[in-house]
Amino acid sequence: MAENRAVTYQGAGKVRVDEIPYPSWELKDGPGVNPDNVGRPLHHGAILKVVTTNICGSDQHMVRGRTTAPEGLALGHEITGEVVETGRDVEFIKVGDLCSVPFNIACGRCRNCKERKTGICLNVNPDRPGSAYGYVDMGGWVGGQAEYVMVPYADFNLLPFPDKDQAMSKIMDLTMLSDIFPTGFHGCVTAGVGVGSTVYIAGAGPVGLAAAAGAQLLGAAVVIVGDLVEDRLAQARSFGCETVDVSKGDPRDQIEEILGVREVDCGVDAVGFEARGHGEGAQQEAPATVLNSLMDLTAAGGALGIPGLYVTGDPGGIDEAAKKGSLSLSLGTGWAKSLSFTTGQCPVMKYNRGLMMAILHDRVQIAKAVNATRISLDEAPQGYADFDSGAAKKYVIDPHGSVAA
Amino acid sequence: MAENRAVTYQGAGKVRVDEIPYPSWELKDGPGVNPDNVGRPLHHGAILKVVTTNICGSDQHMVRGRTTAPEGLALGHEITGEVVETGRDVEFIKVGDLCSVPFNIACGRCRNCKERKTGICLNVNPDRPGSAYGYVDMGGWVGGQAEYVMVPYADFNLLPFPDKDQAMSKIMDLTMLSDIFPTGFHGCVTAGVGVGSTVYIAGAGPVGLAAAAGAQLLGAAVVIVGDLVEDRLAQARSFGCETVDVSKGDPRDQIEEILGVREVDCGVDAVGFEARGHGEGAQQEAPATVLNSLMDLTAAGGALGIPGLYVTGDPGGIDEAAKKGSLSLSLGTGWAKSLSFTTGQCPVMKYNRGLMMAILHDRVQIAKAVNATRISLDEAPQGYADFDSGAAKKYVIDPHGSVAA
Amino acid sequence: MAENRAVTYQGAGKVRVDEIPYPSWELKDGPGVNPDNVGRPLHHGAILKVVTTNICGSDQHMVRGRTTAPEGLALGHEITGEVVETGRDVEFIKVGDLCSVPFNIACGRCRNCKERKTGICLNVNPDRPGSAYGYVDMGGWVGGQAEYVMVPYADFNLLPFPDKDQAMSKIMDLTMLSDIFPTGFHGCVTAGVGVGSTVYIAGAGPVGLAAAAGAQLLGAAVVIVGDLVEDRLAQARSFGCETVDVSKGDPRDQIEEILGVREVDCGVDAVGFEARGHGEGAQQEAPATVLNSLMDLTAAGGALGIPGLYVTGDPGGIDEAAKKGSLSLSLGTGWAKSLSFTTGQCPVMKYNRGLMMAILHDRVQIAKAVNATRISLDEAPQGYADFDSGAAKKYVIDPHGSVAA
Amino acid sequence: MAENRAVTYQGAGKVRVDEIPYPSWELKDGPGVNPDNVGRPLHHGAILKVVTTNICGSDQHMVRGRTTAPEGLALGHEITGEVVETGRDVEFIKVGDLCSVPFNIACGRCRNCKERKTGICLNVNPDRPGSAYGYVDMGGWVGGQAEYVMVPYADFNLLPFPDKDQAMSKIMDLTMLSDIFPTGFHGCVTAGVGVGSTVYIAGAGPVGLAAAAGAQLLGAAVVIVGDLVEDRLAQARSFGCETVDVSKGDPRDQIEEILGVREVDCGVDAVGFEARGHGEGAQQEAPATVLNSLMDLTAAGGALGIPGLYVTGDPGGIDEAAKKGSLSLSLGTGWAKSLSFTTGQCPVMKYNRGLMMAILHDRVQIAKAVNATRISLDEAPQGYADFDSGAAKKYVIDPHGSVAA
Repeated sequence: MAENRAVTYQGAGKVRVDEIPYPSWELKDGPGVNPDNVGRPLHHGAILKVVTTNICGSDQHMVRGRTTAPEGLALGHEITGEVVETGRDVEFIKVGDLCSVPFNIACGRCRNCKERKTGICLNVNPDRPGSAYGYVDMGGWVGGQAEYVMVPYADFNLLPFPDKDQAMSKIMDLTMLSDIFPTGFHGCVTAGVGVGSTVYIAGAGPVGLAAAAGAQLLGAAVVIVGDLVEDRLAQARSFGCETVDVSKGDPRDQIEEILGVREVDCGVDAVGFEARGHGEGAQQEAPATVLNSLMDLTAAGGALGIPGLYVTGDPGGIDEAAKKGSLSLSLGTGWAKSLSFTTGQCPVMKYNRGLMMAILHDRVQIAKAVNATRISLDEAPQGYADFDSGAAKKYVIDPHGSVAA
Repeated sequence: MAENRAVTYQGAGKVRVDEIPYPSWELKDGPGVNPDNVGRPLHHGAILKVVTTNICGSDQHMVRGRTTAPEGLALGHEITGEVVETGRDVEFIKVGDLCSVPFNIACGRCRNCKERKTGICLNVNPDRPGSAYGYVDMGGWVGGQAEYVMVPYADFNLLPFPDKDQAMSKIMDLTMLSDIFPTGFHGCVTAGVGVGSTVYIAGAGPVGLAAAAGAQLLGAAVVIVGDLVEDRLAQARSFGCETVDVSKGDPRDQIEEILGVREVDCGVDAVGFEARGHGEGAQQEAPATVLNSLMDLTAAGGALGIPGLYVTGDPGGIDEAAKKGSLSLSLGTGWAKSLSFTTGQCPVMKYNRGLMMAILHDRVQIAKAVNATRISLDEAPQGYADFDSGAAKKYVIDPHGSVAA
Repeated sequence: MAENRAVTYQGAGKVRVDEIPYPSWELKDGPGVNPDNVGRPLHHGAILKVVTTNICGSDQHMVRGRTTAPEGLALGHEITGEVVETGRDVEFIKVGDLCSVPFNIACGRCRNCKERKTGICLNVNPDRPGSAYGYVDMGGWVGGQAEYVMVPYADFNLLPFPDKDQAMSKIMDLTMLSDIFPTGFHGCVTAGVGVGSTVYIAGAGPVGLAAAAGAQLLGAAVVIVGDLVEDRLAQARSFGCETVDVSKGDPRDQIEEILGVREVDCGVDAVGFEARGHGEGAQQEAPATVLNSLMDLTAAGGALGIPGLYVTGDPGGIDEAAKKGSLSLSLGTGWAKSLSFTTGQCPVMKYNRGLMMAILHDRVQIAKAVNATRISLDEAPQGYADFDSGAAKKYVIDPHGSVAA
Repeated sequence: MAENRAVTYQGAGKVRVDEIPYPSWELKDGPGVNPDNVGRPLHHGAILKVVTTNICGSDQHMVRGRTTAPEGLALGHEITGEVVETGRDVEFIKVGDLCSVPFNIACGRCRNCKERKTGICLNVNPDRPGSAYGYVDMGGWVGGQAEYVMVPYADFNLLPFPDKDQAMSKIMDLTMLSDIFPTGFHGCVTAGVGVGSTVYIAGAGPVGLAAAAGAQLLGAAVVIVGDLVEDRLAQARSFGCETVDVSKGDPRDQIEEILGVREVDCGVDAVGFEARGHGEGAQQEAPATVLNSLMDLTAAGGALGIPGLYVTGDPGGIDEAAKKGSLSLSLGTGWAKSLSFTTGQCPVMKYNRGLMMAILHDRVQIAKAVNATRISLDEAPQGYADFDSGAAKKYVIDPHGSVAA
């Protein structure tokens, strides 16, 4: 029988590369698997040899111990790989296809999937709509920071690249299609970014930088990225963004220096619930800061895209409200400005094909924008640690050494 | 010189019919007029003899003393009238036209007006985008619960009815076009209501009832209205709505009895910041209740339309947060369900023409739905009092006795 | 082995009820089956006992001999039925489910299906995008005017009704969900019909009447239906439509009598390529008449929804251009008015769930609107003949006598 | 009294620079002025000193004698200028503002203007919806290939540039905002161009090249431009487009060489009614060629944007149908592919602000893309001649020598 190794969660602050079972045609019991999913047949699935799999900021929420993730959970939902086996019900995907895997797991058959809302598929997570690989409370689908991974509903979920050699030559860009590029892009689309827009993106982590690249691709006139970490701001400037250092006070002052006006057309929250304060409060966690600040700095009639994660419960929250996922929001300000807000997981499948085309035809350099950095599977624990300490890098795990250096 | 009388605010809990100046071709100083608006020429305006003008729930916020409205302010932003004079720059509107006046005042020339965002016109209120007649902090445009009123930018703002006799025969319906019918309808449109939707509308006041009628017109399969006041719920049932008595606990239980499932497709907040609690807490103000409840009861992938008013400051708020217009929202719940939210004043002009056509061709009975009740100008103070005590009626002031009983 | 009987095409003007094979788990060779589809495995399919199956105007194109349909072809693409067997790959649909079958056959896995364009699925018809049951040049899927029928990709294609008894009590309405109700509705949606619109629908056959009912459901203020056949116009008037007799000259004259203006906001072509002339030319086929007339009578800025079928080749066309599917269109008129045009098969799955909800909650009486008339399988040939002669009826075949009279 | 000079039409093939009246506050009678527009007061207008004004392909239709344009007509609808006088009713536009003038004249007060359909304003052209400066049958508004021009409804129509010096430094780009850049962009938007699209643009004249630049700005993956003139194709290649020489046969063959597939996602017709054939027929006019070819080469589910002009009457048409503006279109092909089509004048105001922002922030080099070439007013007749002979240039008239060489 084939072997498999994966990055696993081992308690707050600890990840480790472990042996895990090679995928099989049913979902076996294991750490974090929902009892109602145990034994689920997977003849509609495909087994992928993982070519690249990235560490995501949302993995960090688990690794920091801010969730109820169980020990032993195999991590990883940003997966690109080559199909090595297909289930008996797979009709169109073929062994040998090199594919991007949307981090949302979707059945392709429920009402939401039919309406393109694949981030809230009704059939893959017994607890609630929506699922992902290697994530707490998401049904128990095994993570893909591994050598091999099972992708259910393969004909629906997988995006095959049209030409394998061409794809391998751009694999550090294409690996961003599984999550952060569509996620950042979705933030921009739902914020109403279009040709000529001025955009403010809160957060210069990988999702924020991907949002910035996405805003440029959508034709934004000016893309401004705000963060506390100078290295990340420098990374944003490296591909033509303007930047705001939020530790220096109200972002509107710096926006005014850039634009001549104190407000932008569109706001994107690429931070989420672990936000810190602005100005003097910048060292403390302040979960509502980003959203309240975006309401201040977005012009009347604008929209806020909110790809940054907000949770229903946060054991590490700073107060009772935060622990329950409640935020003190200045909704009166938003209402007076007729703002609109879009939250939730990005439905990757709405965007990944178009973004793939943009990558393949050299319209965007997403790997450069997010500073994609290749590491081996065994280097993953170090990658987690470096990323957590604020490294302006997006770590791409290459479990089989497939990627040219 | 012509005379004029209007309903005026006289301090918390007091309104009175007073003499006020007949409109002239510039905006004169007076109670609540923004200094930067004093002396503004109004050759683009028209003077209307008011045919009907309604009392609005948002007027009540002022009258209850929950705002900084000055004494002497002439109230009223729901206006229908006949043009009796036109300014020298008016080209298309003619004396004799019977017109609906959108409560938003809009210049028709700024970026926002050109983008159909007439609720946040940039040129009519020196303080911030957006304005209205007879309202605190809205620039100082004189209210229309009066015999005569000035409508600026008349060619842009006024919606003339195609046939005067036909219009007078439906005037109790058409009078709802100035605010609550479009406002409720906007709540439904932004909540994604379409053919076959299930909809929950929080609040069975006039805006909630108008939203319910709007949802029916949009083809909703089931329209459920929630409130605490039995008379209002009975009014909702009178035109085919289902109802939920929110004093009886979690609305999802009653929704399940109606639909067989605990969630609806679309949620509308027709209550706003003066919300009370649900279940046992129903007697106390609890400003975040409605929004948190809507996040609970709207299915993943749904949308919330929020025409109910939220303010940036509320001197009568229950706590410090409420006084600043901050709400403790379970955004984590909303995010997990990928909900979206639309706030703000309804841009009336987007909808009033279509809704007028629906009224004129007997596709909707909005006057019946909201229980429109005609009163004279002198009865207005009593109307305010009755409405405040929860009467399931929409008061329509008829200052000149123009409306057939 | 189970038996099966179906309505089959037997050459121009002839249909007959014949024995045909009971469905099996692969697509067998037979009349009209594309060679590339022969032997295709169907483990993703379900076998339905047909409860109702309707005769469609587009079936008539074949029966009149205007296509290359082969003898022996089992007809019928408007199917509602109960699942009696499911393939081994079917996961969510269960035996016993009573379901509507969209006439478009769709895989649920290709780019177009993922984009909700199920009318042009890339994987079901080897000749071109898009397919249907029992139709010439559509891949060879066996028709459903039969006792039993195979529905491929059952989890994706089937729409189960939530309650079987409730559904049987409205089965004459629900049977319209497989084609004409969504098709007419799609015509309206793509014509821009909304609350308050004025709409002109060319053709009072079943699709035109369904479009009219759809326009009402969408909130249209005035729905005008044009046709040559007085019985059909009377049927349109029976549920509140206005009518235009196109044999009496330019439709704009009659529109002006109804609306006071000579143009409508939205135009729907529910006729297609077998159109006849208007006014004095009304007895002759004139394939471009409907579209040219719609361009004349739709106001500048409007849109035309074109669910009526236009073909790429018509052996019975009136001239060389018509035989090739070319039409002489006054595009200059359309351009001067900035009109837009939407053609093609309705993607049923976009609409059928919402329309089902509207039917189940009594928001629309589609069976009455189209004059649904139940017949037995053996009466189908007579139904074809009566429908061809202009009967203002929609024939619903009830192969098992399941429907209460 | 001030003087004025303009380019005027003097019969087929002849243009000349003539003295014409300096603008005044009413529309005076003159060549081509609609009698119902004579004497129309223009207090809402502004007089502009023209800074740049471009020769347009649609001017050529008149100059070639293909219209009923009267002798003496002052030409020119692509205007950028500085405000030198404002009418008494102008409130927001100020003397000294440097502005782009949308070629559509719009009142800002009718139903269509309120719905952003400024290309079909109901109040400026007594003959039909929609108008333009210096154009036959458009109401008689005096053309702007002149030293001075009157812009009616100045507060609504004019787009002021935020900084005059900055604007003058990019004036050769900004001058394209009055028509061809928005027009080409509108073609792309209505063709559904988005991030990752493959696009085919028929015609490499200025509008086609502007469409190509617009498609890039919208994030298209591959932009292919087709034409017969090698110089124009070279111009398209100069900024990253792929090209198809339509004289060499079916464009699908060359598209396949570029993309690997024979169809694109989106098609744009930037040619219009004076199209020539493809392949061997390329020397002859064949008005339906472009549209039929676009239906062939656009994939099922795609859309066609049709900014290219089609007319209701063409005295120079090749046959009776063409003379009436009728085209023989393969609509059957379009229908089988579920294509949609959008025609008409671009509503410039929907796009000009965003495109201005993109220019000012260096996101697009439209002047380079269309090969903008500055000439003096006196060189205009030569410019017309050169453009007519196929020069791959966009001529920009600089009547006052304002533009730095």
